[in-house]
Amino acid sequence: MSLILKAVENIPLIEKGDDIAEIIFKNAPDIADKDIIVIASTIISKSLGLTFREDEIVPSAEAERIAALNGKDPRFVQAILDQSLEVFTETPFMLVRNTNGHVCINAGIDASNVGGDLLLTLPEKPDGHAAAIGKAIEQKSGKKISVIITDTNGRSFKEGQTNVAVGLYNIKPIRQWIGEKDLYGKVLEISEEAVVDEIAGAANLIMGEGGDGVPAVIVRGLDLYTDEAVSVTEMYRSKERDLIIQGLLELKNKK
Amino acid sequence: MSLILKAVENIPLIEKGDDIAEIIFKNAPDIADKDIIVIASTIISKSLGLTFREDEIVPSAEAERIAALNGKDPRFVQAILDQSLEVFTETPFMLVRNTNGHVCINAGIDASNVGGDLLLTLPEKPDGHAAAIGKAIEQKSGKKISVIITDTNGRSFKEGQTNVAVGLYNIKPIRQWIGEKDLYGKVLEISEEAVVDEIAGAANLIMGEGGDGVPAVIVRGLDLYTDEAVSVTEMYRSKERDLIIQGLLELKNKK
Repeated sequence: MSLILKAVENIPLIEKGDDIAEIIFKNAPDIADKDIIVIASTIISKSLGLTFREDEIVPSAEAERIAALNGKDPRFVQAILDQSLEVFTETPFMLVRNTNGHVCINAGIDASNVGGDLLLTLPEKPDGHAAAIGKAIEQKSGKKISVIITDTNGRSFKEGQTNVAVGLYNIKPIRQWIGEKDLYGKVLEISEEAVVDEIAGAANLIMGEGGDGVPAVIVRGLDLYTDEAVSVTEMYRSKERDLIIQGLLELKNKK
Repeated sequence: MSLILKAVENIPLIEKGDDIAEIIFKNAPDIADKDIIVIASTIISKSLGLTFREDEIVPSAEAERIAALNGKDPRFVQAILDQSLEVFTETPFMLVRNTNGHVCINAGIDASNVGGDLLLTLPEKPDGHAAAIGKAIEQKSGKKISVIITDTNGRSFKEGQTNVAVGLYNIKPIRQWIGEKDLYGKVLEISEEAVVDEIAGAANLIMGEGGDGVPAVIVRGLDLYTDEAVSVTEMYRSKERDLIIQGLLELKNKK
């Protein structure tokens, strides 16, 4: 069994209004059934024009309060608050649940690979954008494909970031091994493989973060296509089920 | 640019004393320079005979205390304590820093794919085992390769597990993008890509967890080989630098 990941080459710098599906299809005309197309959220946000300047933002008193704690610009803090359902840490960094339910630093607002002094926010309905791009590529190619939209995130306990899934089309976030048998015929009790995050991370190995980065990668060889409705939010753990969030809120409330 | 992952087929059920390097080389004779060989820690532990039965263990008073909280067998709790430097959560699950510095549930002790009523512990010096296997394969093949030993872990905020690196040879855990320029020529301020965890996750897509699982995967197409000394522990964040650990200890001390 083998798996192949191929960069979609020659994707230009994306501007507001660009047709991402058309640009990917034009540069990857050999798309096949069950291919998974991994797309950096950055280019989707850019095509949607989700850029802003700090000086367009008027900070609230709450943003001023948090900025005084963490030393960031109150306008940047306000932008994070605008994109967040809940703030789990205020300092030294802001870890939040963003409006789509994803837990990340700074609500995913990013200044890299945007240009000028612009900041970029994550797409607000990432599954919807994954579906729109996926359906358009399916129509152009005549193939049944899956789409994963990604962002780069830090993690607990370890230095370094990895790419993770933030939006899905035609692929379930978790592959269930529960009830299947192990090598010795014993039933596996706990095993839910977060395949979409593993695929997102794999794609990042050839996406890169720098100036030679490629924002789209084709993954071929996996049998994970589904035509059922899916959502990346299926794998987001609720606050009540997440001991780590409870610990962070305990720390926050203590301060 | 492309990346290929290939299962090493026909690996038998591993027994104590088996020569993992020889078994992998025999089943992947076309190993090339800069290949990364990803190996499930399970088979290394089995070859080292790191199995035990609960009834061999005499629980301490501390193990009895924790078992009363989380409902697990006190002997199993003792086995976890024996493999841990520090316990961050006691209930409903035990999240610990294991003796190699890795933060994981149950110190990585596993009952899946072991056989009988045996339990399996992680290798104690995973970098050392990665190096020993890597050097042996280099000698047999005449090629310069890297090795990543992996285990399956849960994560914060999201359901599902992913494969992560727990031992390394000839590959650095983090790829530094700091100081490099983005698409617009702006210097990237923060970007440290945890490539070894992304590679471990990618390999898991074809390893699988069940009875048709393959415990070794060849990754080809990345330029990450180094002959410098490396350690997986370079990416482990200290307690002082990890807000999440501080939050969990806050919760634990409150109870």
